[in-house]
Amino acid sequence: MSTRNRSWRLLRRPAGDDIRDALELSVDDLPSPSEGQVVVRNAYLSLDAGTRMWLTARKDSYEPPLPLGSVLRGQTLGVVTASRHPDYQPGQLLRFRGDWADYSMLRPADGAYVEQVSWQLEIGEAKTGETVVVSAASGVTGALAGQIATLCGCRVVGITGSPVKANWLTTTLGFDAAIDRSAQPDLGTALAAACPDGIDVYFENVGGAVLDAALDHMATYGRVAVCGLLLNYDKPAAPAGPARFDQILMKRLTTTGFFSADWHWRGTEINRTLRPWYDAGRLRMRFDVTDGLEHTPEAYQRVFTGDKVGKALVRISELS
Amino acid sequence: MSTRNRSWRLLRRPAGDDIRDALELSVDDLPSPSEGQVVVRNAYLSLDAGTRMWLTARKDSYEPPLPLGSVLRGQTLGVVTASRHPDYQPGQLLRFRGDWADYSMLRPADGAYVEQVSWQLEIGEAKTGETVVVSAASGVTGALAGQIATLCGCRVVGITGSPVKANWLTTTLGFDAAIDRSAQPDLGTALAAACPDGIDVYFENVGGAVLDAALDHMATYGRVAVCGLLLNYDKPAAPAGPARFDQILMKRLTTTGFFSADWHWRGTEINRTLRPWYDAGRLRMRFDVTDGLEHTPEAYQRVFTGDKVGKALVRISELS
Repeated sequence: MSTRNRSWRLLRRPAGDDIRDALELSVDDLPSPSEGQVVVRNAYLSLDAGTRMWLTARKDSYEPPLPLGSVLRGQTLGVVTASRHPDYQPGQLLRFRGDWADYSMLRPADGAYVEQVSWQLEIGEAKTGETVVVSAASGVTGALAGQIATLCGCRVVGITGSPVKANWLTTTLGFDAAIDRSAQPDLGTALAAACPDGIDVYFENVGGAVLDAALDHMATYGRVAVCGLLLNYDKPAAPAGPARFDQILMKRLTTTGFFSADWHWRGTEINRTLRPWYDAGRLRMRFDVTDGLEHTPEAYQRVFTGDKVGKALVRISELS
Repeated sequence: MSTRNRSWRLLRRPAGDDIRDALELSVDDLPSPSEGQVVVRNAYLSLDAGTRMWLTARKDSYEPPLPLGSVLRGQTLGVVTASRHPDYQPGQLLRFRGDWADYSMLRPADGAYVEQVSWQLEIGEAKTGETVVVSAASGVTGALAGQIATLCGCRVVGITGSPVKANWLTTTLGFDAAIDRSAQPDLGTALAAACPDGIDVYFENVGGAVLDAALDHMATYGRVAVCGLLLNYDKPAAPAGPARFDQILMKRLTTTGFFSADWHWRGTEINRTLRPWYDAGRLRMRFDVTDGLEHTPEAYQRVFTGDKVGKALVRISELS
């Protein structure tokens, strides 16, 4: 008996946010696993801004561009349905990098997925009492980074885009202050007021004018953890770097880029720290769940157009 | 008996390289030292590109702009002629940050100067066998940084501006390769050929297109030690940052700015390492000495116009 498997494939390279028309849903029969392979029924697919980079033809990102015709990939939570690998049994719950599809065919070398963001404690080396600024702070990455910093005893300022989001950061997530860019078009003045002693650690998700404003208000010997440059991802080539780059020299800043896949090996340790916080309600996450694999491209487009609140997920099938 | 003291003062803020007309030589009587002060007869004055920043009105550099009318300052080697401080006696040889003048009036809080550049071993964390690229490699800072890296077992590639300089780097200083920009206008191609496995450590002195080319060819997890951004110093405001800034994210680079004054406390240790190398002829330095305090502005202008070879010094008086 053959199983039907729907997969989202890259039809052409999207221009800007026009992701929907760049993808095509193909339907194939799911093959049986070969020796060493594992079949997983995908339950939840995580939609991440970084995926956008692989859709362009740029060769200077983390990984080479996704070839046209290929199935898109992303972080997935799913249930093993068939296995020809001794370490995996049907019924097991796995997190991994899987296909934008009903099923993923895994090889163990694909490795296990761990939640993004938790490693900024290492990269930025935020210390108790320091001032931490997080951009895109109401996004899932920024909200987690900021909450972890507050739980580590830092003074945390979030930059976000609406009064509702700013209010959520301070009243629900425990941020010490939030800058609503819609009400404060001069970000520099707002940062200077919120961080009178300068920014010790800046957690960067955005790039562009926000990065420049932050560089301008860094404290001497400050650290910039570059988690993402969201504004760049849908561009055919990298836009100009920060005009305030020279502040890295003038203020003796350390700027470090990082990538979630480099930190998967720390997953167990990260979960051991974060899970109790989450269970105790000290770490809050919101989810924006879209039902049905067929709606994935629209849901992904909303990651960029800002029309979402919380971690974007697609529910492809039931977990159990 | 009064002593005449000539000092170069900042008359107006220079535009570009037009330094000569921005300075004025004033002549005053040298006062006697007050309690706690030391008078030093300046013998050698070091001319450093970084000084150029303090001549502009920019408030975003290491230190505030030099007020108009003030005496310029720089690293100085001189002989104590009078002292009202218990730790300093006439005849002592001192290195310090002094005046562009015949004499400097010191307070001990001014501290002692140590040779620039030796700390890049710490900032870039270059390891044996790694590929190190140095920009402005035939300048005094670049030449020292590159030689120290070769002595630490790194493979060292210098970027410089003429065939004579490139030849000097490889035949005299022991660089493994040198890129002559006058013969290789496409720096990216030349860097790719010289560093087939990418650049592990980039020692940056210049900024602009050179920095972009280096960022483009960094190895994953590479490190950029930002020692200087020479191209920026005579600009009224910082120019655009590197177009390839996003490579910091894509390649997970660590970029750290540093400033010599932050490392003076390591001076004894640095000298203990470098001095035997220098005495044994393993570390070579060239000097471009101009005689006479009155010629300081022209000599300083040559620091930027490139018409010099070696460490620019002004001999103000005899050492002994």
